[in-house]
Amino acid sequence: MGNSFGHLFRITTWGESHGGGVGVVVDGCPPRLPLSEADIQPDLDRRRPGQSSITTPRKETDTVQILSGVFEGQTLGTPISMWVKNEDFRSEAYSEMATKFRPSHADYTYQAKYGTRAWPGGGRTSARETIGRVAAGAIAKKLLRLRWGVEILACVTQVQDLTASVDPETVQATDIESNIVRCPDPTAAHMMIERIEQRRSEGDSVGGVVLGIARGVPVGWGDPVFDRLEADLAKAMLSLPASKGFEIGSGFAGVLLTGRQHNDAFRNVDGRVRTVTNRSGGIQGGISNGETVHFRVAFKPVATVMHEQDTVDVTYANTTLKGRGRHDPCVLPRAVPMVEAMAALVLLDHALRHEAQCGSHQSMP
Amino acid sequence: MGNSFGHLFRITTWGESHGGGVGVVVDGCPPRLPLSEADIQPDLDRRRPGQSSITTPRKETDTVQILSGVFEGQTLGTPISMWVKNEDFRSEAYSEMATKFRPSHADYTYQAKYGTRAWPGGGRTSARETIGRVAAGAIAKKLLRLRWGVEILACVTQVQDLTASVDPETVQATDIESNIVRCPDPTAAHMMIERIEQRRSEGDSVGGVVLGIARGVPVGWGDPVFDRLEADLAKAMLSLPASKGFEIGSGFAGVLLTGRQHNDAFRNVDGRVRTVTNRSGGIQGGISNGETVHFRVAFKPVATVMHEQDTVDVTYANTTLKGRGRHDPCVLPRAVPMVEAMAALVLLDHALRHEAQCGSHQSMP
Amino acid sequence: MGNSFGHLFRITTWGESHGGGVGVVVDGCPPRLPLSEADIQPDLDRRRPGQSSITTPRKETDTVQILSGVFEGQTLGTPISMWVKNEDFRSEAYSEMATKFRPSHADYTYQAKYGTRAWPGGGRTSARETIGRVAAGAIAKKLLRLRWGVEILACVTQVQDLTASVDPETVQATDIESNIVRCPDPTAAHMMIERIEQRRSEGDSVGGVVLGIARGVPVGWGDPVFDRLEADLAKAMLSLPASKGFEIGSGFAGVLLTGRQHNDAFRNVDGRVRTVTNRSGGIQGGISNGETVHFRVAFKPVATVMHEQDTVDVTYANTTLKGRGRHDPCVLPRAVPMVEAMAALVLLDHALRHEAQCGSHQSMP
Amino acid sequence: MGNSFGHLFRITTWGESHGGGVGVVVDGCPPRLPLSEADIQPDLDRRRPGQSSITTPRKETDTVQILSGVFEGQTLGTPISMWVKNEDFRSEAYSEMATKFRPSHADYTYQAKYGTRAWPGGGRTSARETIGRVAAGAIAKKLLRLRWGVEILACVTQVQDLTASVDPETVQATDIESNIVRCPDPTAAHMMIERIEQRRSEGDSVGGVVLGIARGVPVGWGDPVFDRLEADLAKAMLSLPASKGFEIGSGFAGVLLTGRQHNDAFRNVDGRVRTVTNRSGGIQGGISNGETVHFRVAFKPVATVMHEQDTVDVTYANTTLKGRGRHDPCVLPRAVPMVEAMAALVLLDHALRHEAQCGSHQSMP
Repeated sequence: MGNSFGHLFRITTWGESHGGGVGVVVDGCPPRLPLSEADIQPDLDRRRPGQSSITTPRKETDTVQILSGVFEGQTLGTPISMWVKNEDFRSEAYSEMATKFRPSHADYTYQAKYGTRAWPGGGRTSARETIGRVAAGAIAKKLLRLRWGVEILACVTQVQDLTASVDPETVQATDIESNIVRCPDPTAAHMMIERIEQRRSEGDSVGGVVLGIARGVPVGWGDPVFDRLEADLAKAMLSLPASKGFEIGSGFAGVLLTGRQHNDAFRNVDGRVRTVTNRSGGIQGGISNGETVHFRVAFKPVATVMHEQDTVDVTYANTTLKGRGRHDPCVLPRAVPMVEAMAALVLLDHALRHEAQCGSHQSMP
Repeated sequence: MGNSFGHLFRITTWGESHGGGVGVVVDGCPPRLPLSEADIQPDLDRRRPGQSSITTPRKETDTVQILSGVFEGQTLGTPISMWVKNEDFRSEAYSEMATKFRPSHADYTYQAKYGTRAWPGGGRTSARETIGRVAAGAIAKKLLRLRWGVEILACVTQVQDLTASVDPETVQATDIESNIVRCPDPTAAHMMIERIEQRRSEGDSVGGVVLGIARGVPVGWGDPVFDRLEADLAKAMLSLPASKGFEIGSGFAGVLLTGRQHNDAFRNVDGRVRTVTNRSGGIQGGISNGETVHFRVAFKPVATVMHEQDTVDVTYANTTLKGRGRHDPCVLPRAVPMVEAMAALVLLDHALRHEAQCGSHQSMP
Repeated sequence: MGNSFGHLFRITTWGESHGGGVGVVVDGCPPRLPLSEADIQPDLDRRRPGQSSITTPRKETDTVQILSGVFEGQTLGTPISMWVKNEDFRSEAYSEMATKFRPSHADYTYQAKYGTRAWPGGGRTSARETIGRVAAGAIAKKLLRLRWGVEILACVTQVQDLTASVDPETVQATDIESNIVRCPDPTAAHMMIERIEQRRSEGDSVGGVVLGIARGVPVGWGDPVFDRLEADLAKAMLSLPASKGFEIGSGFAGVLLTGRQHNDAFRNVDGRVRTVTNRSGGIQGGISNGETVHFRVAFKPVATVMHEQDTVDVTYANTTLKGRGRHDPCVLPRAVPMVEAMAALVLLDHALRHEAQCGSHQSMP
Repeated sequence: MGNSFGHLFRITTWGESHGGGVGVVVDGCPPRLPLSEADIQPDLDRRRPGQSSITTPRKETDTVQILSGVFEGQTLGTPISMWVKNEDFRSEAYSEMATKFRPSHADYTYQAKYGTRAWPGGGRTSARETIGRVAAGAIAKKLLRLRWGVEILACVTQVQDLTASVDPETVQATDIESNIVRCPDPTAAHMMIERIEQRRSEGDSVGGVVLGIARGVPVGWGDPVFDRLEADLAKAMLSLPASKGFEIGSGFAGVLLTGRQHNDAFRNVDGRVRTVTNRSGGIQGGISNGETVHFRVAFKPVATVMHEQDTVDVTYANTTLKGRGRHDPCVLPRAVPMVEAMAALVLLDHALRHEAQCGSHQSMP
C-alpha cells in the first residue's frame, strides 16, 4: 500500500533499484494533451545521478519510454504508463547491505515490517523510485502551464548553514539552472558547491532546504477541511526521501510575530483582490488566494557516509558498517525536480477537483 | 470534498459554526471496543472555548452525543456518529463579516471558490469544525492505548520567542495539564501565560509551536512510498487551522548537521534493535522503528485582532475591519488536543493497514 | 468500513434501527444549489413504512432535518449532514431476535463478523439504513435535473410471476405513482396488489423486479475500465437490501440472441448519433451513449414470514423462530425510491468525474 | 480515471491493444508469498486468443514478465508490476475502424468522451486490457488458496439457449478444463461447441452465461453497507467487457418464490452453523456465511460480425461497416479466467479488510 498519490490525477509508482526497472502509471490525465518522451526526459535528466561533479558519479541515463495512453502525439485519457529500465548493476558494491542495516536508512524498518527486503541498491527505498514521480510531474507541469498558466519552480536556498535569499515572485528558472547546485543566488551557490565538495572529500555529507514555488495559481484551488492545499503539499513533500520538514508561507518563523504583524492586508489592485504581504504563502483556509504559493522543504544530510558506523546486522548483533560505492554527498540539487514534480501533482489534482465541484457554480440556477 | 480523513479508520466531519451543529462519522472502528460519551468528553473539554483565562471567554459546553455505532457499551463495527449541538449564537458580533473579508482568514477564498459562504462565526472555517476530529481522535487514542499500548501526547513548547525544553521520552500528561498553557516546563509556562495576557491586553495575538509525541509505537507502521508515516502526520498537522509548518525528528535544525553527526547508530539493547540517538523521530523510510515518534507543528498568531486593518469587502472595494467579539489571543493551548487527535488518527489508520498487509506474513508458507 | 459511496459526490450513511437515529453526510455537493428539507422529504415519504396497505403498518414519519451545508437556502459546498431521529421503538416485538438468528437475514453473519450486533430492529441491517441514501439521492436527482436535464425514474415491473410491460422511453412518474405498488401498468398493478395481499394473509411474502431508468443522460459519462457506468450501477443496486440481481439493457435475455440480432445500429438522426435499438441500455464500453439508460434489479421475497422456521440460536443450538411484529410482505414499492436514489448517486458522481477529466478537452491547445 | 480496482489489494491496469504493451501494477500484496511468472502464465494462457478452434485465431503468446515486487522468489510487499509486450500488429485489418464506429462497440462513446481514441485494435477497449486483471487475479487466487484455503472456479453454463446443469458444490477444475468451451457438462459442452462453430460459419456470434464459484470462504468477509460482498462482485463482473448481467444465489429466478420457499434454514452441522439450502449464494447482509459463494454473469454475443451493418462515421454521416480480421465468435471460454480473476480480487480485498477491522476483536479487552 501507499504507492499511489492523487485523487483525480492519480499516479502509482513501482520498481526497485536493482530489479527490472522503475515506472509509473498515471490515471486521470485529461485527453488531447500533446505529449511525448521529449516532455518528460528533461526533468529526468535534472534528477538523474551523474549529472554534475557534486552528485553521485553513477552513470544512469534514465531514458524514459511511454508505453500507453498516448496516440498520434496526444494523450488518450487512458492510463499513461512510463518506465525506465534498470542498468549499471553493481550489486557487489552493496553486498554488505545484505546482512547489515545502514544507519538512518530504511533497511531495518523494511525488514521488520515485511520480513524481507530487496537489499541490492536499497531496493524500493532507493531514490530511484522518484523517477516515476518526476516523470508524472512533468506531465502535470505541462498541463498546469498550458491550461492555467501556472508555473512551478523550485531551487536550493540553504546547504547546512549557508543560506541564499530568493524572492519567490521573481526568481527565474534560468537562474536556478545556471549552476549545478540549483541555487539562483550565484554567490551563495558558489559557497554551497565548495561546502558540498569539502564534505565529500571528508567522506561526509550535508543537507539543506529547497524552496518550492507556484506562480499564477488561480483563486479557489484546495479543499478544506482535510485536503487543504498546504496539507496536501506537506504530505507530498514529506513523502520525498530524506525530507524532514515543511513550512508554508511564514512557516516556523511566523510564530515570532504577533497577529497584527503577521496578517496579510487585502487591497483591491486593478480590480483584483490582492494581499499586500504574502505570509499566508498564497493559501488561506486551505484554498489558494491568487498570490504566489511558496513553501520550504528540509532535507537531512545523506545517510550514507564513508566512515565506519555502529549498527546491527540482520541477526540483531552489534557490528559496524562503512559506506561504499558511489553516493551523493548532498541530495539537494537532485531534489529540486522532485519538489517541482510533487508540487505540480498536488496542484493539478486540486485544479481538477475544483472543476468537478465548483466548475460551473456560476451557472447554478 | 476534502472532509474525510483516513483509509481504514476513516472520519468525515461536518458542520458550520452557527448551523445546526458540528459532528463526525467514524467508519472502520473495530468492534467490541468499550465506548461511551465519557471517553470523548474530556478531550472536547480540553478543546472547548472558555476553559481558562487565556482562551476565548465564549461559553460553549460542547457536550457530545453518540448517535450510532455503540450498543450496550461496546462499538458495533458500524459507523459511529457523534455530534455537538450548536449554542450561544451571537451573530450580531459577526455582522460586519457578512460584507467584509477578515485579513488572513478564509472568508475571501471560500467566497471566491464557492460563490457563497456561511459568514456567521466563520461557518465551516471556524475552529469549531475540529470538534469532530477531537471526538474521533479520542476513540483512536483509546484503541491505540488498549490494543497496542501506544501513548499519544502533545504540549506547547514555544509561544512567540519563549521556548521550553521538553524531553519527548519522559514528559508526562499530568505535567502538561498542570497549567493552562499546556507547557510542561513550569517556568516557561508562566512566562508564556504572561506573554499571552500581555498581547491580549494590547488587542493583539500570538502563535507558537506544539510538540507531538507517540510513545510505544511498534516497529513497522507506515506505508512507503507516498503514505509514509511522517507524510501522513504532516498532512494531518497542516490540515489544522492556523498551522504553518511541520517537522519530524531533527527537522529544519537537522540540515545544519553533517551525515556523520546526524545519523542514528543502531545498537542491540536487551535483544531489541534500538537507535542511540533519535534524530529520525522514530520513523525511517516512512516506517516506525520502535523509537518515540516526535514532531513539531507551527501555529501562526491568531488572525483576529482588535485593531483596524486594511481589507476589502464583498464588492472588492477597499475598506477596513476591526475584530470584535470574543476570540482566543493564542490557539496553542486548545491546539494540543487537536494535535493529539490527528496524530492518533494517523497512527491507528496505519496500525490497521499494517495488520491488513503484514499481519500474518510470519505464517506465510 | 463500507459505509461510503461515490468519489466526488460522496455519501456516508450511519445509524441503527433502534439507536439515536439514522443519517447521512454528503461531501462534494456543488455550491449554490437551492436546497431545503422540502426537496428531500417527498422521497423519504415514498420510502417510509406505513405509506399504504401493502407496506408494513409501522408508523414512522421519517422527518428529515438538514444540520449543515445549507445557508440561506443554498448549498455551501461544505458537507450536508441530514438525519432522521428514531421513534416508535417496540423492542419487545424483536426480543427473540436477541438470541436467535433469523433465516436469510444478516443476524448470523453480523454476529460472526463483529462478535456483536445491535439486534433490536435488525440494527444496522434494517432497511431503515436506506433513509440516508434516499435523502442524498434526492439531492443528486435535483442536481441532475437542474444542471443536465437528466430524469431518474424507477417502477415495479414484476411481482413473483406477474409482469408488466413498461417502455423506458415513455413511462411517466405520474403513472408510476398512481397506485400503491408503483407499477405504471394499471392492470398488472391491480394483480400485483392482490397477490401481495394474498401472500400477506398467508403470513408469507413475495419479491419482484424494479426497472430503473435515466433519461437525458449526455454522451460521455462513465469511466472505463473498472468504473464503467453499468459496473457502478450494478454495485449500487446490489448494495440495496434484498437485491439479488442486476442487468443492463438486454441483460440475461440478450444471451439468447446472436450478434447480428443483438447489435444496435447507429444512425444519424437530426445531426445526433442515435442507436436504432437500445439493447446496450444506453451504455457502450462503460460510457453513456446518449440513449436512455435502463436496467432491472431483482429483489428476493422478504425474509421475515409469520411461520415457524428452522434456525439456530446464538449458542449455535438448533431451534425455531416465527416472525412477529409489523413487516412488509413485499419490499418492491418501497424499493422504487431507493433504486432511483442509487442511480442518481452513480450518475451524478460520473457527471462530476467527467467534468474533471474531460470538461474542457475541446479547449486543449 | 477508473483504471484501478480494490482498496487493500489494489490493481491498476494500463495499455492499449496496439501500443507498447499492456500491464498491471498490484499494490498491497502481502510480503513473502512465493511468486514467479510460472504462477501467472497458466491463467494468461487460458485467456489468450488462439488457444482453441472456437476462439479467434490471432496468435498472441501473451508472455508475462514481472518487473518489480518480487525478490529471490518471494513478494516484497512493494508494488508488483507485470506486463505483456504487444505483438502481431495487423493494423490494416482495422483500418476502416479509423473512420467508422463499430455498432455496439465503444468506438463512438470513447470518441465522444475523450475527443480522440486509439482506433487500432480497439485501443483501450480491446479485451486485451483484461490481461492485467487476469495476471493480478492469479496472485490473488494463490494467496486465497494458500492462506485461507479458498478455491475460485468459473465455468460456462449457457451458450445462447443451450444450458448445462452444474453443481457449485462439487464441480471440479479438471472437468471444466476438459473441453474447449469450459463447460463441465460434456454433453452440453459438445452442443455448445457445435453451436459456436455454426454461428461462426454464418459470420455471426453468440453470448452466454458464466457461473462463478468461491468455495471455502470463511464466515465474515464483506463490508456492509455499500461494499457488500455481492455488490463488489457485481461491480467486478459488470466491469468485464461484454457483460450485461449479474445475479447472486437465487438471482432473478428467486423472485418467483415466496419467502417461505426462498429462505435458507439454519442448522447446526457438526458444530458449525450451516444453511440447509443456499439460495443466499453464500452471502447474507453483504457478509459471507461460510457456504459456497455462487453467482452468474451474462455475456452478450460478440459485437463484431462478418456482415454489413448500419453505422455512422466519425463525421456522423450514415454508412455501413462489415467486420474483418480475426475475432472470437463467442467470448465465453476466454471469459472464464476473467471471472475467476475478478472474483479472486474481490474476495482477497475483503479478506484483508476483514483482518484490518475485525482481525483481533476476540482479543478486545
